[in-house]
Amino acid sequence: MNISNLPTPEVTQGPLPASRKVWHAGVLHPAIRVPMREIDLHPSAGEPPVTVYDSSGPYTDPETPVDISAGLARVRRPWVEARGDVEAYDGRHVRPEDNGFVQGERLVPEFPQRHQPLRAKGSAAVTQLAYARAGIVTAEMEFVAIRENLGRRAAKEAAVRDGQDWGAAIPDHVTPEFVRDEIARGRAILPCNINHPELEPMAIGRNFLVKINANIGNSAVTSSMAEEVEKMVWATRWGADTVMDLSTGRNIHNIRDWIIRNSAVPIGTVPLYQALEKVNGIAEDLTWEVYRDTLIEQAEQGVDYFTIHAGVRLHMIPLTVNRVTGIVSRGGSIMAKWCLHHHRESFLYEHFEEICQICRAYDVSFSLGDGLRPGSIADANDAAQFAELETLGKLTHIAWAHDCQVMIEGPGHVPMHKIKQNMDKQLEVCDEAPFYTLGPLTTDIAPGYDHITSGIGAAMIGWFGCAMLCYVTPKEHLGLPDRDDVKVGVITYKIAAHAADLAKGHPGAQVRDDALSRARFEFRWEDQFNLSLDPETARALHDETLPKEAHKVAHFCSMCGPKFCSMKISHDIRAEAQKEGMAKMAEKYREGGSLYMPLDTVKEDV
Amino acid sequence: MNISNLPTPEVTQGPLPASRKVWHAGVLHPAIRVPMREIDLHPSAGEPPVTVYDSSGPYTDPETPVDISAGLARVRRPWVEARGDVEAYDGRHVRPEDNGFVQGERLVPEFPQRHQPLRAKGSAAVTQLAYARAGIVTAEMEFVAIRENLGRRAAKEAAVRDGQDWGAAIPDHVTPEFVRDEIARGRAILPCNINHPELEPMAIGRNFLVKINANIGNSAVTSSMAEEVEKMVWATRWGADTVMDLSTGRNIHNIRDWIIRNSAVPIGTVPLYQALEKVNGIAEDLTWEVYRDTLIEQAEQGVDYFTIHAGVRLHMIPLTVNRVTGIVSRGGSIMAKWCLHHHRESFLYEHFEEICQICRAYDVSFSLGDGLRPGSIADANDAAQFAELETLGKLTHIAWAHDCQVMIEGPGHVPMHKIKQNMDKQLEVCDEAPFYTLGPLTTDIAPGYDHITSGIGAAMIGWFGCAMLCYVTPKEHLGLPDRDDVKVGVITYKIAAHAADLAKGHPGAQVRDDALSRARFEFRWEDQFNLSLDPETARALHDETLPKEAHKVAHFCSMCGPKFCSMKISHDIRAEAQKEGMAKMAEKYREGGSLYMPLDTVKEDV
Repeated sequence: MNISNLPTPEVTQGPLPASRKVWHAGVLHPAIRVPMREIDLHPSAGEPPVTVYDSSGPYTDPETPVDISAGLARVRRPWVEARGDVEAYDGRHVRPEDNGFVQGERLVPEFPQRHQPLRAKGSAAVTQLAYARAGIVTAEMEFVAIRENLGRRAAKEAAVRDGQDWGAAIPDHVTPEFVRDEIARGRAILPCNINHPELEPMAIGRNFLVKINANIGNSAVTSSMAEEVEKMVWATRWGADTVMDLSTGRNIHNIRDWIIRNSAVPIGTVPLYQALEKVNGIAEDLTWEVYRDTLIEQAEQGVDYFTIHAGVRLHMIPLTVNRVTGIVSRGGSIMAKWCLHHHRESFLYEHFEEICQICRAYDVSFSLGDGLRPGSIADANDAAQFAELETLGKLTHIAWAHDCQVMIEGPGHVPMHKIKQNMDKQLEVCDEAPFYTLGPLTTDIAPGYDHITSGIGAAMIGWFGCAMLCYVTPKEHLGLPDRDDVKVGVITYKIAAHAADLAKGHPGAQVRDDALSRARFEFRWEDQFNLSLDPETARALHDETLPKEAHKVAHFCSMCGPKFCSMKISHDIRAEAQKEGMAKMAEKYREGGSLYMPLDTVKEDV
Repeated sequence: MNISNLPTPEVTQGPLPASRKVWHAGVLHPAIRVPMREIDLHPSAGEPPVTVYDSSGPYTDPETPVDISAGLARVRRPWVEARGDVEAYDGRHVRPEDNGFVQGERLVPEFPQRHQPLRAKGSAAVTQLAYARAGIVTAEMEFVAIRENLGRRAAKEAAVRDGQDWGAAIPDHVTPEFVRDEIARGRAILPCNINHPELEPMAIGRNFLVKINANIGNSAVTSSMAEEVEKMVWATRWGADTVMDLSTGRNIHNIRDWIIRNSAVPIGTVPLYQALEKVNGIAEDLTWEVYRDTLIEQAEQGVDYFTIHAGVRLHMIPLTVNRVTGIVSRGGSIMAKWCLHHHRESFLYEHFEEICQICRAYDVSFSLGDGLRPGSIADANDAAQFAELETLGKLTHIAWAHDCQVMIEGPGHVPMHKIKQNMDKQLEVCDEAPFYTLGPLTTDIAPGYDHITSGIGAAMIGWFGCAMLCYVTPKEHLGLPDRDDVKVGVITYKIAAHAADLAKGHPGAQVRDDALSRARFEFRWEDQFNLSLDPETARALHDETLPKEAHKVAHFCSMCGPKFCSMKISHDIRAEAQKEGMAKMAEKYREGGSLYMPLDTVKEDV
């Protein structure tokens, strides 16, 4: 294949406004360079830059050249090799069925660079969990520790803790040892396939910042490789911490290669989707052999976590029959159909320990799928859902016994008053393995706005302890999200995750809120835009009515106009108060003397 | 003035898709006609129409001609007159300062129809609270009872109660007597100025459906009369239960007349804004006389509730000085400035009982403003905020002593873990007077998306007992909302209110969710669109990828494509299960025999 003829996808690049990428080196592992974003403020603020978590990868760094057809730098490769427990090998050859038998012009070209895959030597477990249990602080763990701290110092932050953490154990300062311990206990995962060396390590766990996932992927109906690569870059630009490639159409293998080679965030998949393509979409024709082959194929490519619907068991299926919306998980419904047809327990369940053997050889994390999650308010927290959750708890312990990292997927559609029960039950049944929920959607009646119906539930369950929130876009239930939908979904979920961090009292979470609020109060409009989750939109909405540059320093906006600006008046008040001395002023006015006072006695009279 | 020369505003009219307006008559008051919307389903559903609450007024009824320059039918006039306690009088004459001294072409024309205002005879209280305390079930109260029930029958709904109501007392079936009792106890208000006979009565209280308010209004910078009337009609079309006219520019009086005469929902205002215009925007020049004159002016026009910032007291102002965002309520900051300048308690506080005298003569409800609400996460639940709330509790009892209806405004910016404290404290301090909150916004970092940051908080506080949620649009903090922003704000808040109703276990709330979910499961796409809060958007998003009519009956969407549709597979499963008999099937598979079983013992081993 002639690489120069490839239609290299164009992706969005360049820093966000007023932002610079900075790198922090490790101490235990001096070679690591942990990216953060510093947002510069106007000199009049007299404040240092605000440091924020940066999931965007090298695309926002003008110093790093981007070449999609070459892929990102394979930074982690030496870290993995230094551990001395992996070997390179030829790997599985790509077969026609891997791309849905598509040929000729309709075949998405292979990714131009071919790398030999790695796997564990012998029966070694090369997972972060295995290292953590062995007391090893890996480079990945130190990377995460630095990243989670956002450059803050322990002492300063400890003073401002304020929140209700529902029994979490969030430290003032994240040490590499803390990361190791959380992973060893199974309370966090660090998804990082040894064949995805382009990845910047991150952690998912209730004692870390709440993370979000964005789903991308083509379907049989729509979307192309170039679009999907750009969606991945775009989603991470706005804050997606992981990306799931849920492609179900043709070209699955090749599109995934392009995505992984260019992704700085962990990539998750549902291997069942590709396995089903390999048997022409006929669920009954699925076999363990086809599925196993798909796991190997994807593990070699570098997929960081697999959604595996092994909790759907035969005896649970009748529990879904009288539901309002039956089984709404694609994977769950496929497995249920298979189980019913063959009248036996699913091959995912029967071969679960073999799946563990594969995952531990590449460090693919489990995302145990909730195939029986509720798809409507009516079906929330029902017998089918919780029966499956019990099984997921048992599978969690099996995976742990094989040194595999595990998180648990959760619903779905759940009214607000049933959300906490989901979280509490998951923590109990799965011994605090990280929970990873889709929403949940708090009502069924707003298709077109399900990023919002679910953003409500996501914020709440994030607060209660959910470790990662899978975004929902405005297109949910209606179609495949495009680039705009992806952005709206990501920003909505960044809001939910951040609201959760604030409510949990995560140290340092409020730093950005405070900086933005000060900018707002001081009419530093540019700073207000730059500190926001979506500077472009904030600026555009402001400029709809006040487009001139002069308005960027105006002491009002079009909402109230100059005469009515409460913030402007507040400044006058502050000035007056400071003139007089606040303590004196407060004393003078407190329950002040001859003022109108019948009020205090009224309550008793009524 | 030649009426035919008036630029009569055009407003959006016509029913929503598949919807008919139906009217329910009263029993105690046979003349009343309570509007509801029935959404017809496809015949294949075999289901009756779904009845939903209808705040849209006559504009969605093709049978009712609309003439904006004539105003809506003055239906309540005979109800008010029949009580025999009001008198018509000449009323106050419009003065140049009422419209900001604007003249000539820039003056918005007066509303063409002039009606004599009504007021209470002598010192009578003509409030719904006074009637309720006297044991009188007014036509307005029966209207509300029918409206809240949505045509449902008690027995059927009682069976499906499911929720956590945090101590509310929501009945299975709302009787007129229940409405009377809730109003008598001060736990609900029924805002209905005797000079707003065009209004369709509604109730605000924690034991009724959660309501939402939309703010409209011009500012000195932007917006015209025609736009504001359309915004009011538009906001109610999508579900706004009340509308606040927060105009602060010129032409305030005349624009308000056009709005009220054409509004079927209660209209609220902040009279201080107009009073300030009358003194050329100089807060220090405000006087009780100017303010009192404005109250009379607006009461005669028919304003249904007044936001009055009487809780801002002199001794509280120093408590705001070290806040991150000072005072962010416009009314609060104006009064604080006045108090500081004059070094005395505000005229709102000193003359509160005279304000009560005015309100009881027209039945204008109080919305006690939270002038010291927090404007940032940092300032949430601070001493200033709660000091004011204590005062609002005392003012509530004074207003009640004068037979005035009262609700209490609330924040603002509050992180999730501090929301419930707001609700609990308000219920306690204000003896369950209805709470009416702005959001609250759960983070400060997302300007451009504050409908979402606040929709999260609104859903939660609605669940906890908040009676009405004041919407926030994407333009919050950035500019004045346009028509699109109004719609997004309203739909977001309908989601929050409905999610709250579901979580409280409001009887019947889930009917619409269930109907929509059944439609979704049965691939009745048209029904799914029609049952949604915003059918236009749902349809448009679906049609972006599958525009053809044939796709409206397709058993898949572009999200997963035909092969992967879980709902399609669920139907196969249901068919198979029903063939075999579900009970038998369940029995056969339960913990089935020889299946792979090491799992149950794993937990103990690990």
